[in-house]
Parts: sequence; structure tokens; C-alpha cells
Amino acid sequence: MKKWVYKFSSELTDGNKDLKALLGGKGANLAEMCSMKLSVPAGFTVTTEACLDYYKTNKEISPEIRSQVTEALQWVEKLTNKKFGDVENPLLFSVRSGARASMPGMMDTVLNLGLNDKTVIGMAKKTNNPRFAWDSYRRFIQMYSNVVLGINTSILESNMEDLKEARGVHEDTALTAKDLEELVGVYKSVILEDHGIVFPQDPVEQLWKAIAAVFGSWNNNRATKYREMNNIPHDWGTAVNIQSMVFGNMGDTCATGVCFTRDPSTGEKKFFGEFLVNAQGEDVVAGIRTPQPINNESKMESNKHHKTLEEVMPKAYADLVEDYKMLENHYKDMQDIEFTIENGKLYILQTRNAKRTVNASLKVAVDLVAEKMITTNEAIMRISPEDLNQLLHPRLDPKAKKNIIATGLPASPGAASGQMVFTSHAAEEWHKAGKKVVLVRAETSPEDIGGMVASTGILTARGGMTSHAAVVARGMGKPCVAGCTALVISERDKTLTVKGKTYKEGDFITFDGANGEVYEGIVPTIEATITADFATFMKWADAIRKLRVRTNADTPEDAKTAIEFGAEGIGLCRTEHMFFAPERILAVREMIFAENEMARKKALDKLLPFQREDFSGIFREMNGLPVNIRLLDPPLHEFLPHSEKDQTELGQVLGLSLKQIKERNDSLHEFNPMLGHRGCRLAITYPEIYIMQVRAIIEAAVESDKKGIKVFPEIMIPLTSELREYSVIQSECKAEIEKVFKEKNHTVKYKMGTMLELPRACIMAGEIARESEFFSFGTNDLTQTTFGLSRDDAGKFLPSYTARGIYPRDPFVSIDQPGVGFLMKHAVAEGKKTNAHIHVGICGEHGGEPHSVEFCHNIGLDYVSCSPFRVPIARLAAAQAVLRT
Amino acid sequence: MKKWVYKFSSELTDGNKDLKALLGGKGANLAEMCSMKLSVPAGFTVTTEACLDYYKTNKEISPEIRSQVTEALQWVEKLTNKKFGDVENPLLFSVRSGARASMPGMMDTVLNLGLNDKTVIGMAKKTNNPRFAWDSYRRFIQMYSNVVLGINTSILESNMEDLKEARGVHEDTALTAKDLEELVGVYKSVILEDHGIVFPQDPVEQLWKAIAAVFGSWNNNRATKYREMNNIPHDWGTAVNIQSMVFGNMGDTCATGVCFTRDPSTGEKKFFGEFLVNAQGEDVVAGIRTPQPINNESKMESNKHHKTLEEVMPKAYADLVEDYKMLENHYKDMQDIEFTIENGKLYILQTRNAKRTVNASLKVAVDLVAEKMITTNEAIMRISPEDLNQLLHPRLDPKAKKNIIATGLPASPGAASGQMVFTSHAAEEWHKAGKKVVLVRAETSPEDIGGMVASTGILTARGGMTSHAAVVARGMGKPCVAGCTALVISERDKTLTVKGKTYKEGDFITFDGANGEVYEGIVPTIEATITADFATFMKWADAIRKLRVRTNADTPEDAKTAIEFGAEGIGLCRTEHMFFAPERILAVREMIFAENEMARKKALDKLLPFQREDFSGIFREMNGLPVNIRLLDPPLHEFLPHSEKDQTELGQVLGLSLKQIKERNDSLHEFNPMLGHRGCRLAITYPEIYIMQVRAIIEAAVESDKKGIKVFPEIMIPLTSELREYSVIQSECKAEIEKVFKEKNHTVKYKMGTMLELPRACIMAGEIARESEFFSFGTNDLTQTTFGLSRDDAGKFLPSYTARGIYPRDPFVSIDQPGVGFLMKHAVAEGKKTNAHIHVGICGEHGGEPHSVEFCHNIGLDYVSCSPFRVPIARLAAAQAVLRT
Repeated sequence: MKKWVYKFSSELTDGNKDLKALLGGKGANLAEMCSMKLSVPAGFTVTTEACLDYYKTNKEISPEIRSQVTEALQWVEKLTNKKFGDVENPLLFSVRSGARASMPGMMDTVLNLGLNDKTVIGMAKKTNNPRFAWDSYRRFIQMYSNVVLGINTSILESNMEDLKEARGVHEDTALTAKDLEELVGVYKSVILEDHGIVFPQDPVEQLWKAIAAVFGSWNNNRATKYREMNNIPHDWGTAVNIQSMVFGNMGDTCATGVCFTRDPSTGEKKFFGEFLVNAQGEDVVAGIRTPQPINNESKMESNKHHKTLEEVMPKAYADLVEDYKMLENHYKDMQDIEFTIENGKLYILQTRNAKRTVNASLKVAVDLVAEKMITTNEAIMRISPEDLNQLLHPRLDPKAKKNIIATGLPASPGAASGQMVFTSHAAEEWHKAGKKVVLVRAETSPEDIGGMVASTGILTARGGMTSHAAVVARGMGKPCVAGCTALVISERDKTLTVKGKTYKEGDFITFDGANGEVYEGIVPTIEATITADFATFMKWADAIRKLRVRTNADTPEDAKTAIEFGAEGIGLCRTEHMFFAPERILAVREMIFAENEMARKKALDKLLPFQREDFSGIFREMNGLPVNIRLLDPPLHEFLPHSEKDQTELGQVLGLSLKQIKERNDSLHEFNPMLGHRGCRLAITYPEIYIMQVRAIIEAAVESDKKGIKVFPEIMIPLTSELREYSVIQSECKAEIEKVFKEKNHTVKYKMGTMLELPRACIMAGEIARESEFFSFGTNDLTQTTFGLSRDDAGKFLPSYTARGIYPRDPFVSIDQPGVGFLMKHAVAEGKKTNAHIHVGICGEHGGEPHSVEFCHNIGLDYVSCSPFRVPIARLAAAQAVLRT
Repeated sequence: MKKWVYKFSSELTDGNKDLKALLGGKGANLAEMCSMKLSVPAGFTVTTEACLDYYKTNKEISPEIRSQVTEALQWVEKLTNKKFGDVENPLLFSVRSGARASMPGMMDTVLNLGLNDKTVIGMAKKTNNPRFAWDSYRRFIQMYSNVVLGINTSILESNMEDLKEARGVHEDTALTAKDLEELVGVYKSVILEDHGIVFPQDPVEQLWKAIAAVFGSWNNNRATKYREMNNIPHDWGTAVNIQSMVFGNMGDTCATGVCFTRDPSTGEKKFFGEFLVNAQGEDVVAGIRTPQPINNESKMESNKHHKTLEEVMPKAYADLVEDYKMLENHYKDMQDIEFTIENGKLYILQTRNAKRTVNASLKVAVDLVAEKMITTNEAIMRISPEDLNQLLHPRLDPKAKKNIIATGLPASPGAASGQMVFTSHAAEEWHKAGKKVVLVRAETSPEDIGGMVASTGILTARGGMTSHAAVVARGMGKPCVAGCTALVISERDKTLTVKGKTYKEGDFITFDGANGEVYEGIVPTIEATITADFATFMKWADAIRKLRVRTNADTPEDAKTAIEFGAEGIGLCRTEHMFFAPERILAVREMIFAENEMARKKALDKLLPFQREDFSGIFREMNGLPVNIRLLDPPLHEFLPHSEKDQTELGQVLGLSLKQIKERNDSLHEFNPMLGHRGCRLAITYPEIYIMQVRAIIEAAVESDKKGIKVFPEIMIPLTSELREYSVIQSECKAEIEKVFKEKNHTVKYKMGTMLELPRACIMAGEIARESEFFSFGTNDLTQTTFGLSRDDAGKFLPSYTARGIYPRDPFVSIDQPGVGFLMKHAVAEGKKTNAHIHVGICGEHGGEPHSVEFCHNIGLDYVSCSPFRVPIARLAAAQAVLRT
């Protein structure tokens, strides 16, 4: 005969924590605690298979299951020395769902099952607490009516309100036993009159119906939707946990409480908790009565004069201490334990790994290793990489008052507050004047770099997670909320309007780049702190990971920050950002407007010394580490003068009229610049641009090498889609490099390779690898082209896609593994076939996102590269990837 | 011993036409003609292997090869009864290259080899024609100096010019034998003085050096580049053909000519040709003397009083007739034959399949089948599908005078001439006034449809082969030249400026959409004619092809045209083109500007009857054939009002100010509209749009079905990239369809499926096929996204890519098989795995391009769909694809 029911008690337990699939998470954990001989209220679990059987047999509980349930019930009666339905000494049950995966709040629970018009009197007598008994019965009717009878119980709640009004009281607790008895009568007659149902008095009937109701709740709308959203199979089913009730509110020898095995806000090793005498679990949380400290260590300002559990119930406290130690040792992690003391006897109701701050997580993990409770590898798995953000960026004071006015995309973590400015120019001026400013813009463009540097944070109304503002802010480690579409920004009027209220330049604003929330005024922040534990922990992660972690950095300053965060090289140095400095942009524009190759070369000659200086600075900072430099990538029109002032200035230099400048601007317009004349396509039409750039790189490398700085330049060609295209450019660049070597009579080692950022590049990777020495996945553009989705325009519809679960995650945040990942896998496999030594990395924004880092590890990449502030996150994610495989 | 040398003569032949790899194309054909016992001047071929050996042995001709050449030379001496280097009766040779693949003009040739200071005198005596002998010697020195000695012969040419001036003559022919003898002396002394080379007098030395020079020419720059461009392997090598010279210019018993076995302009079965007495081959072409007809049938106005070959050399003519019949029979195709008559004896120098007009091609192919010379399958392979364009579109009179002013992309075939207009409005007005106009625009947009309809052709300065103008023009069957970047068009001034000349509205212009050329003024055109042969021929093609051929048609008119061209259904009916009609566009704009779902539905309700009417018309025309309708695809801003007039009008309807309308226009702006809020993404955010469209389709289908029209609607969702996205939309559409069925109490069969036009859609095709009933490859967008290349912007750089051979063909014209094709293959294979019955087609522009059609056949598509005028081309290409596999 199949086993449909698993018993649990401290005396005998059928299950254990490994039977989650059969017993559900809750059932398995109850069994586990029982097998540790903790005093858990006895009960039994009806398996998930019984749930599936229920659906198979047309929503009938089969006789075989019924007989096993009955047998288990009798076993609980014996153990507890109570009887189900007995008038003198009634046994009551809680009936709860419990699926294999946690589905919080999705399914139903019934407490106090077994009460009826007779047992309630027995309860009252036995506990000598009629109010408690009638209140329990009232609650049971309400819950049962809702969950099992399917009645909308708002009418019952209003009956209770009516009664309170009639009695002239405000709190439920002010109702007397008599009042509650009367209320039970009212409830029953409402249920009869409105729904034609006699409230069932037979506890056994109550039980079967409750079990059926829990099974039924597996397929309620909420639960079904939740499973769809979370990819939980519909055919798992739920178990039902039927557990004898214990009460902390039966009198002064009763209590209920919550404790932590360590301090959840610091992670310090001290036993910490609160309790209330003669109370139910929810009273501890509700805050009507001030909870008492369980021991002296737990005393706080608010309760330091209260007696401790240790003092009032020393035996139960001693048992609790014994139990908490056992639990922490067993689960090898800090626990959050719920307990009830019924007539002096301690019961453990639940234990789970405790929620804690990231700093506490880190301390607990490091301490547990020191205590030899867990290995370093186990410690590594204990911290979610994304959580490290909290350690690296300022955050809002969790206790501060906040007035949320809008929510956008959490584009770059950290909290920022300051005075609003609407132009980069203003940001720079106000910053010079010593003010803290937040740059608020519809969207940013490369021309805003100066303003972004001058601001404490950037807030935009448009653009996605990989918009210009988001990418640059993350690179700078500045907080940013992007794509906050509720904001109406008028850059002309210098106002921000949201929810009908208009703010003007200089008004204070705060936002949290970690959750995308925007607040009115100033909200106090807490600065980031990095502890010694952090360093210890990261050393463990570094020792195990296989992926190298580089950084995306365009300046010596960024490079320096990244090295402090543990970067092992530069994976992407964008040369175009260097073009925007005021003293250079004019030469860039001269180059773009050049009518022929000679004029273009003349302008490029002016840029050469600047570029060389940039690279020298970066080589100096990265002494001994590889530096991957991407040649010019964006479409030329990004550099064009947009203001009439700039246009006039350029006209003067070139001897052209304003009209001519405007016409030239227009002629460079593109319908889809993302898919336009950019990347290596520029080098096919204007080879002299890349030639100037490689000359600057190699001249800087040679000079640095002569000074004793170890240089490892890697020259990267963007937007390749074909071997022949790559070959043409590579051979032109190599010819120039050979020239420089001859001129300087000095050589350095270097590599040449390409980005893979177009589907075709990935498809043709086997071909391209014949000549390319390395690949670097540009997953931002690869995602855009694979999906046919412009990240700058996706803000209008991508949120609907993720909200409706069409894409489980924003593909610009986490690599789309089935789609984009398919191309990456193909490229790595094909590339290695034709070039076994090819070095492969990723430099898209995904390089610092934990799921993506794991994917990169799994498909055999050599390194990931991300913005400096994400380097520690990538290091940890890379270590976890190793441990997960 | 290896065979390095293959002899050929009418007596004995070592080779045949199948030995092209070893003997080269020319050598194999000479051998073939000899084995047919035609009188070909005797000679021998040194193999391509000898060429490779030459390179392997450090550019030495090995003794073994030398000895075989010497033996073959003696064999030719015996056959011709002449002696190489003999003073009395010298044997002369031509020495020519001949590779496996034709490489016209890439390698070198030396004629008259064997002449020297002594043999020239023997020649003069023997032919009794000293001028001929000295002229031959002069030519030989020039050619040999260039090819073998590597001397820049421009100085020799100027020596000749000097002499002509000194003699006071203009033509080379006016120089006497004495003059030429003197010139030979000058040549030799220049070669000696300037280059220190004594011109070689030993014929054997001449021969070895000439052979080495031909081998060397395989690796000259021109040849190497040509091979790279045409993917010809560098290790094939060239053969050398050494053939005894015959002369048509030794006197009046000599002649030279060219003949065709059928009429090359009509294909009629009549023997046709021209000749000249006492002349060289080039004289026939040069046009200094009027060639004589070979027979009465060949007489034309210009030469009808001349004597025929039949009259003047009846024996040679009779031999020629015998030979031409044999050759046509042997090669089973119309031949173009070069012959020379030396002292009354006919020699065949060359035969090849004759170039001919497409009409002639067709007639010849059909006739050859009737004559049982070839099978229908062989006939099918005789016509290049692309050439059918000539039959379907008007073309320029080839004899007309033309003044080319610019060249653009051959975007839609056919010749057009008319008066220039610069706006669609003007096009419509002038057309109404009975004028023939050409619409000249920087680029067209969907708003220009009316103007395009009113014009005889469209000429644009920007955009590529798949720009709006190109796609729409091809759909309409109208000639179009697009992306003609040399044109500077001012729509404001209504002028077109090119090469410094400005044309204004009303000036005449002509262009040829088949080659992209633009001409000043009116050039006369010839109308298209479709013959009975065409119908016969296409029937054969249809019988064999496996691919069905559908058409892309948006209107009943297009559908009708396409059916006449043999379309078997509609593969793409774009619903958005229907939105631009003046009476509809306002409702479309109302829909776009709607603030909420209700307002949007109200506007959509206005569009519903129009759409229903559109579909009814198409179903009527396509009675019994499938009609694939794509739901709305373009980004909404394509429909926005651009002129202030339209904006004001819309504002009045909506009660909005001009400023508000402009702001709303701005807010719909996208950075990369191609990758923006379009296709099924519109349906995710605004489901009511597709719901209106499916209602219109199904209502029309139901009504048509009730009238007895057989309808097979296929509803296609564009821009899908994910199964969940497709499912959401499909279920919304199906729910609406069920509603319509219930309302009408009548059902029809229909299919729902999706386009595959994004890389991710192809990658995920296995998933998507679980629900989609068909796939249709949208290869325009798929090419754009796979390459990351905007077709609208590629005009600036794509020409450099194809010119430099980076992409062998424009990927927007012919499917990029290694890249885009990889995704297509993957999608077909994966789709069939999960849905064995999935129906797969292509509706991108590539569906009518022969290479692409062949590819579609090879990867197992069910149909291709193309613009109406390309349907016959696709039908033929599909048939050829079957025969090629």
C-alpha cells in the first residue's frame, strides 16, 4: 500500500528534509525538526501525491488516503493525550498547505480546526479562559468560512465592527467572552441565512473539507498565476500539514516569541530575541504590547526594564538555548526561530535561515568558517553577489521618513540627494559653487559627461537599463534612476512635474538607484563601509573562481578605482569618450567635416597627441595588466555640434557658413544609427581614423615600455561581421604598427581581435577566429540586434514584456540565455575549432550581472569585464559559478 | 612519364572538353573541336600542372616538359608542312593562356611567335605580301616586348606615331612595307638602348620565354585580384595553348568572319554571318570596311549589294555550313563561330554558345526542344531567370543615343522617361493633366504612394535596394533607380543638380531601372512583349519545380497582376499600406493619439469597414488561393502628420492645439525605429489594434465564403521573438475570431502563424513552432538585424563593401547564405522537429531573387513570395533549383 501520510513528532518521524518533493517545504522541515527530537507539536503531512490523486479522482479523497489520515489522527490523539472532538479535552489542529517550492501567501490555512459549539465549552473550562476559547472559535469560523466554504467574509468582519460599536469599544481585545459568544451566534446565522449552510459541527467533516480545500487552493487563480510567473510546474501539487495546536495565550504560564541565533543587523554572535506572556504569535509583531527581551543581551532602550524570559521562565529559556544551539549547528546558519510556551512547556514552531543585512551576512559567514561550522566554499554561497552593492554604495537610512513621488528603473545603485539641475552646464556651475546637485534630464547624451561627473546622481525620464545615463553612471559608480516615465521634464522651463506637482531648479530631491524610487526633498543616507571580513571573504572567492574579472574603464581614474576593487585588467577602454573633452571635440568635428582624406588626416594629427596621452595614463595605472582598447565605435554624428554656438564656432574654423554646417549635420543623419555607419564600417570608408588610433596606442605602449611599465595592449575592432572585413582592417592596422616599431626602434607585444556584437559575427566566429586573436562579446548590441530591440526605445514596451512574464528577465540586464546565449555558445565553440588559443571575454553590461557571469563561466569564457563598482560582484558570481557546476 | 603536353589537330587529339582542369577552358575546347574532325589549326596545350610545376621548381621549365614541347612542336611542323624558324616556309605560333575558369583579359597572349629578321623575309616572299610580313613582325615585337620582356611599350607606340607624322599619314594601314621595315629597326634599337636587350632572334628561345611569361601572368596583380574577387583558387594555374597561326589577310583567297547558327536577335533558325576578304579578325569588328554577308539570308540594308561568301568562296562556304551544323548539334545550342580562310582553306578558330537577346534565348530553347536536340529540362537551364525581366518591362532602345548623367542602384527594372516632378502632389496633378512624369525625391515615404502610382518611374538620391522606394516600386512593377547619390535634390527649390548642371521641374529625364543609369532628356524605349514561347517555357518550369510561388500584394489590383504572372497565392499582404489612403489616415491618427483604450477602440471602429472592404476585394481576386495577411507592422510614428496643415487638421478633430500635436509627435520619436515599438510589440501594449484587424479579416472571409468565394486566410503576426509573446497575441486574436464566427453563425478555415524576421525568432523557432501553424521568413529585417545593418542607412558604406569584395553580393539583394542562411536553416530544422506539419515560406524581397530562391528550395521551404513582376523569375529559379540538385 502506498504511503500517503507521513507522521511527525519528537517521538517518531516518517520524513526528513530531503523529502521536499513529497512533503512540501514546510512538511519536510517539520519532519526534520522532529527527527532532531525538538519538541514540535505532533502532526502529520498528507503528501503532494495525495493532492495529485485528488485531482485525478475527480476531486475525491480516496478511501485509502482517508484511512491513513484517520490512523495518523488517532496516533496524534494518543501522543497528545487529547481527543479530536472531545468535549472535555479537545484536540485542535492547524491545516496548512506546503508546496515543494515556496509560494508565500498563495494558498490557504485553517487554524483551530476541531472547535464546535461543544468543544469550545470544553476548551473554556480546561483553560479556565472562556474569552480565549470563544475568540478561538470565532476566528476558526471566519477562516473556515472563507477557505473551505468559499464565503466572502467581509460581512462577518462588519458584524464584529457593529458589535464593537454597540459595546462602545475600539479594540477587538475589549470584547468579552460573552460578546464573542454572541458574535459566534451571529456568524452562524449569517452563514445559514445568506448561504444556506449549517456551520459544520462534526470535526471529522471539518477536517476532510479543509484538506480538500487546501488541495483545491493549488489551482486557485493566485497560485496558478504565481506558478506561471515563477516557472513552477503545475503538476507538482501541494502537501497538507495537519498539526496539533499549541497556545501561548492560555494564561500566564504561556508565552510566545521569536529569536535569532545571532544579531541580524550586525551578525555578532549573541543570542537575541523577544517574547510576550499570554499572547499569540501575531501579538509580538503587532506592537500593541512592548515585547520583553529573552535575555540581558537582547535588552534595548525600549524594553530594558522588562523582565527577561530567562528570569520568568528559566526552564523554558534553558530549553530554548539548548534548541537554538542545536538548530544553528544542524542548519549551519544563523536561524530565525518561532516558539510557543504552553503551560510552561516549550514548543518550536518554525525555524528558518534568518534574514539579515549584508554586513551581517558577511560577518556570519566569516565567523561560521572560523567556528569550523562551514567551509569557505559554503561561505561563498551564502552571499548573493548583487547584495555586495549595499557594501559599495551609500544607501538610504531605513528609518528615515520618505515621500515617494515616482519609481523608475534601478539603473545604478546607491542613494543620492541634492538640488535639482536640468542642464549639464548648470550641474558644473553649481558644483563649482560647492552645491550638491542631482542632474535631472529627459535623457543624457555623450555631451553630458561633464555634468554627470559634477552631480551626485543622475535621474532620467527615458531610456532603459543600458541607456547612456545608466551605462555611464554605473561606470562612474554614481547612483542613477533611469526611464522614470512618470516624470515630465521641461529642460527649457527647468521644471520637473510629477503627480500634478511641479518642482523647479534648486529644489531638493533624493533617489535610490538600488530600487528606482524617487523621493521629495532630502532623505538621510548611510555611507558605505568596507570591513576586514569583506577582504577575507573576497579572497576565498578569488581563490576558487576560474573566470578572470576585468573592468570597463576609459580613464586613468576609473582604472585606478577598478584596481582597488580587484580588477585584473581592462576589458573595454572606449576611445570615443576621450573625444568629447572640450579641447578635442573641435578637432573631431574638423575630421568629420573633412572633404577628403588629406583634410581628415590633418584633423586626426591634432587628435593623435591627446589619444597617446590618454593611453599612457591608462598603461601607467594598469602596469602589468592587459588593457583592451576598442577603436572608434559610435556613428560620427554623435560628435556633431548641436547648439548654434558650437555650429558657428566650427564654421569659423572651417570657413563654412552656419547653413553649410547645418546641411552637413543633416546629411549625416541616420534613420537607425544603431545599425548605421559606425564601428569598423568607419574604417572601411575612412581607414585613416583607426590608423591614427593604433599609432597613438602603440606609441604610448612603446614609450611606457621604455620607462619600465609593463604593457599588454589589446586592440579591438568593433562591429565586425565578416572575416574579410576584419582582415582588411587588421592588415592596415598592423602595417601602421610595424611603422611605429621601426620609427621607435622598439617593439612591444600586442594582440588584435574583435568584438562579437552582431548575430552574424557570432555565426561566422569560426571564420573570424582564423585571424582574430581574441573575441569580446558586446552583449549590449548583441542583445539589441538578436531581439531587434533598441535599448533606447524599449522603455515604452519592455516593461509590459517583463511584467507579463514574456521575458523572464530584462534581457538588457541579464543575458537572454536561450536566444543571445545560443549565439554566444555557438561562437565560442566555432571559434575554438579554428583557433584553439583564442581568448574570449565579455565587455557588455552583462559582465557584472551574476546570472550572466555564471552563464559566461559555463560556456567557457576566459574573463568578464564590467564597470569598476561591479568588479567585486562579478568576482563573487564567478566563484559561485564554479561551486554550482 | 607524366603527360605535360596535349596535342590537338583534326588528325589526332589527346584531349577533350572534359579535361578543363588540366587543359584550361580554351585548350579543352580546341581539343573538343579537333576530335570532331573540324579543321582547327594544329597545336598543343601545355597543362596547368606544368604551370604548377614551374612555380614549384623555382620558375624553371623542367627538362621533361621541354622535351615534350619539342616533340609536339615537331609534330605540328610535320602536319603543317612548315618549319619553326625556317627561312623559306616558317611556322608561326600563337601562345595564349587558358585557365580552368574564364578570366577574360587577365592574362597574356603573344601572336606571330617565330618571326625574326630572317623568317620575316621568307614570309614576305612566300605570301608575296611584304607589307603583311613586316606588319606581322612589328606587331610581334610590340606584343612580345610587353608580355615577355616586361617593357612598357608606350614608347614603341609613339615611335610609330612619329613615323606616321613624318610620312604625313593618319592610318596605320597607310604605312608601306618599307616604312614598317624601318619601324622594326627603330623598335629593336629602342629595346637595346633603353633596356639593354637584344631582341631575341632564336624562335626556340622566343617560345620558352613566352611559355614562362604566360605561366608568370597567372600571378600578375590583375589576375590575382580577379581570382580573389571571384573566389577562384590561386592553386589552379593556367595552361598554355601553342597553336599554329593561320592568316585571313595573306591575299584575296583569304578571308575572316564570324557567324551565328541562328539569328541572335530573334532566335529564328537561319544561318547568319559576316566576313571580309583579305582581312584579320579584328577588321570585321572595327567597322572600317563594311563586312559582307555570308549568304543571302544574312543580307541587310547596309550590305545587300555585296557578294556573299557563298558566291565568292563556295567551297569554303559549303565547309562552313557543314561545320556549323555539326557544331550546333554537338554543343546542342546556338553557336557563335569565328573562322578564317587561308588560301581557300577554312579553319575554325573558336566556337562558343552565342550571346542573344532573351526573346531569342527563349525561342532557341523552345525550338531546340521541338527539334529534339535538347530536353525540356535542358531548355529550362538555358535561360537566366533574371533575364526574364527584359520580357516583362519596357527597355531602352539599344540603338538610341544616350547621355548618362549619373548611375544609381538598379532598384526596379524597366526603362522610364518623363517630366521631372519633386513632390507626390505634383506627380498626381501633372498625371491628371495627362502628362508623363518621373517622381524625383531624396527618398520616398509611405505618404508618397499616391505620387508613385501617378508616375512612370521613381528616382531617389538615397536608400538602398530595399529602401521604401525600391520595395514599393518593385511591388508596383514600376521602374526605379534608388540611392543615386550623385544627385543633389532640392525639394524646396524643385531642382535636381548633377555634375554642375541644374534641372528644374518639367525637364525631361530618362532612366533604366535594370542597370541604374540616368539619362538627360528623352531616350526612346521598346515595349515589353510576351510570346507564346514564354508560356510554353514557363509551363515546363512549373511542371518541375517543388517550391510554390506566391506574391506580395496589398491590393486587389496587385493580386490580379500577380495571378496573370502565375502567382499561386499571396505570401504577404501588408495591411499598413491600406492605412495611408486619405479617407483613412485621419482615423489612423486618431487611434495613435488616443489617450486610452476606449478612444483607441473608437478610432479603430472607423477603420474596421475599410479594412474589411480591402480584404473582401483581395479574397475575390484570389478565389481558391491562400492569402497571407500580416497584421500591422510599422512603428506608429510612420503614420503621424508631418505637415503643419495635416497637424492642424488633426488638432481640430481631436480638440488639441498645434503645439500639443507637435509634442505628441515628438514623444513618439524613436532613436532606432527599425528596432522600436512596432510589429507585435504594438499588440502587446495595444491589443485592440490586432483585434480590429482580425475581425476585419474574418468578417470579410465569412462574407466571401457565403458568396461562394473560396477563402484561405492566413493571419500572420510580425516581429515575434518568443513563444510566450506569440501565444498571448494568438489567443487574443483567436478569441475575437470565435466571437465573429458566433455572431455570423458561420465559420471558415484559417491559419495563424508568424514571421521569422529577427535572429532570436529563428533561434527559438523550435519553441514558436509549438503554436504557430506557419513561418514566413522576413529576410529584409532578418538581414538588417543579423548584420546590424540598416538598409536605409547602408547606402553610405555598403557599396564599398561589395566593391572591395567583403560581401560577395549585396545581402539585401541575395540572401547572405553563411550568415542569414544559417539562421534560416536552423529555424526550419528546429521548427519541423516540434511541428512536423509547419508550413514555411519567405516573403522578404529575396523571394524573387534566383540565388535566394535556390537556397530556399535547398533548405526545404514550401514557397517563396515576391512582388508580382518577379513571379515568373521565381518560378523559373525554382525549377532550376530542382535541376541543380
